[in-house]
Amino acid sequence: MQTIKLKNKPYLLNGYSIVGPMEGKGPLKDYFDYILKDDTLKEKTFEKSERKLLQDIIVGAIDKANLKVSDIDFFFGGDLLNQIVSSSYTARELELPFIGLYSACATMAESIALASIFVDNGLANNVVAGTCTHFSSAERQYRFPLELGNQRPPTAQWTITGGGASVISNNPSNIRVVAVTFGRVVDFGIGDVNNMGAAMAPAACDTIREHMKNVGRSSSDYDLILTGDLGKLGSEILIDLMEREKFILGKNYSDCGCMMYDKTERVFMGGSGAGCSASVLNSYILKKLSAGEFKRVLLVSTGALMSTTTSQQGDTIPGIAHAVELEYVGNKPVNKSVTFAKGEKKDG
Amino acid sequence: MQTIKLKNKPYLLNGYSIVGPMEGKGPLKDYFDYILKDDTLKEKTFEKSERKLLQDIIVGAIDKANLKVSDIDFFFGGDLLNQIVSSSYTARELELPFIGLYSACATMAESIALASIFVDNGLANNVVAGTCTHFSSAERQYRFPLELGNQRPPTAQWTITGGGASVISNNPSNIRVVAVTFGRVVDFGIGDVNNMGAAMAPAACDTIREHMKNVGRSSSDYDLILTGDLGKLGSEILIDLMEREKFILGKNYSDCGCMMYDKTERVFMGGSGAGCSASVLNSYILKKLSAGEFKRVLLVSTGALMSTTTSQQGDTIPGIAHAVELEYVGNKPVNKSVTFAKGEKKDG
Repeated sequence: MQTIKLKNKPYLLNGYSIVGPMEGKGPLKDYFDYILKDDTLKEKTFEKSERKLLQDIIVGAIDKANLKVSDIDFFFGGDLLNQIVSSSYTARELELPFIGLYSACATMAESIALASIFVDNGLANNVVAGTCTHFSSAERQYRFPLELGNQRPPTAQWTITGGGASVISNNPSNIRVVAVTFGRVVDFGIGDVNNMGAAMAPAACDTIREHMKNVGRSSSDYDLILTGDLGKLGSEILIDLMEREKFILGKNYSDCGCMMYDKTERVFMGGSGAGCSASVLNSYILKKLSAGEFKRVLLVSTGALMSTTTSQQGDTIPGIAHAVELEYVGNKPVNKSVTFAKGEKKDG
Repeated sequence: MQTIKLKNKPYLLNGYSIVGPMEGKGPLKDYFDYILKDDTLKEKTFEKSERKLLQDIIVGAIDKANLKVSDIDFFFGGDLLNQIVSSSYTARELELPFIGLYSACATMAESIALASIFVDNGLANNVVAGTCTHFSSAERQYRFPLELGNQRPPTAQWTITGGGASVISNNPSNIRVVAVTFGRVVDFGIGDVNNMGAAMAPAACDTIREHMKNVGRSSSDYDLILTGDLGKLGSEILIDLMEREKFILGKNYSDCGCMMYDKTERVFMGGSGAGCSASVLNSYILKKLSAGEFKRVLLVSTGALMSTTTSQQGDTIPGIAHAVELEYVGNKPVNKSVTFAKGEKKDG
């Protein structure tokens, strides 16, 4: 069965999120731990900025969980850059055993799912799972050099600068990971890389349906069902697809990509990127669950598994979605006031 | 602890390997399940050939284990192409829940390690773990177009065409997975992408030392300690590094990259690629362990975690190594005669 019900329900001990200046003006601005003023993070290339961003996020999460890097048993992560270099070079700095993952923008849920399985089965006490994206590095790797000033079609999304990391642990907090579902790869034949929401929606539908069936819940059992980065069009397609299978996604459904930006920003269908669900999980969801305002949340990170090469060779875009179910248990408050991982980040 | 001792010791039920024409002339030729006559596999691009190769390998392993695709709970895999597209598109064809991984050429050990953890903890009954590489797709993604006819320096290695997959299961076989170690990322400052053996050797040393310490064994307890693709120079560096730490790697140490080619082939330091340890594990090691000729083997797949972008931006090459310890248990013979997964492969 693709859904794994966690017998000991490990804790999401704490999480940390950083976003860029543009994301920091959006509706979730009060929930993020840190908003960058300078998205270069004083690095010479955008790829190095992304790496520094992930490093700060991981260290921030460990620190906010009141742990040291040496308390962490494994680092689970991946990112959108070729050969997941942001994660690998971050793992080098942390000197932690590293389990490198890739599910495109579904990487956050994949990381948390595997991390939770390790803690649930007594293979680790504390692990960290995280990812991030940077608009400028993604743009030049997947699309065009920024200097070219290309126009975007109306179905396009905007890769966020930002990300988040969670510490999964045996130590109690208010939030437990109760079940995870690893998705199948689904392809409905969308070939347009400027319409990724449509490409990923069928995978999200498949995973949500299987997850709910396997845990025996319906959509009304959740305070929030949150997809990763389907965007406006992709979310509408998902609602339609679910309806055909007699699953009604109501007002408790939203999408991290749709929540990220203000209506005044020209981001078309909304935010995207592995950092999108990572930052929303470790800010908004974390705080709402931790305070008991949400009792049960299903996070469904969504990924588009193409590469520039497959697109150039005429392949369609396969999608994947992994799901993580979180519940409020009200053990003890976990949110200490936001601290900065490293001194130099204050001017970030 | 980065080593996980598997309490139920899941079985490596069976494995399957395919290699290209050049690899099929090497010293291991009698061990591979299938040797391609045409390394394009009748596909229009090398990337599509690689994808077809992985598909045939995965289906071959499932078939050789006397299972159907529908008996498999999860597919663990990754590959060297950007965004691990060979694995993702293979997962699309198989319609299996997919856990996408990336550790460069250490991906086989990472896949088997996670797959074994799933079965060991009762999260799955049968899972498949596999990877492959294709010389021609790797060459043009990481180095130069083949048409350029570039010369290679003497420290270079040769990405193999080939790969392998293993079915990890509760069903008994002669081979058990007893312990796995997830490596740390180690970087000794090598920046030369034509000297990957030197870049990966320190990570191999770190993982082998930690694994042996954690399971309480010394190198003489193994019939074979096998690194992934350090090549001739990297292997010599590893022997030196281990010696400094008072670990003697003797005649029971070898490297898949060194075993792959005949001395007459102009492959310089030997074979490399994620498919290198994948194909050797699922041919030579599988058969020797299965027959009881080996009682205990430590497979240490090694990966270089750079990208072309990090190299261009002046970064050094971080290495990683994951280890999997296999033992002979002599339950029952598993190797049925080699079958072909699909009719069309016979003319491959």
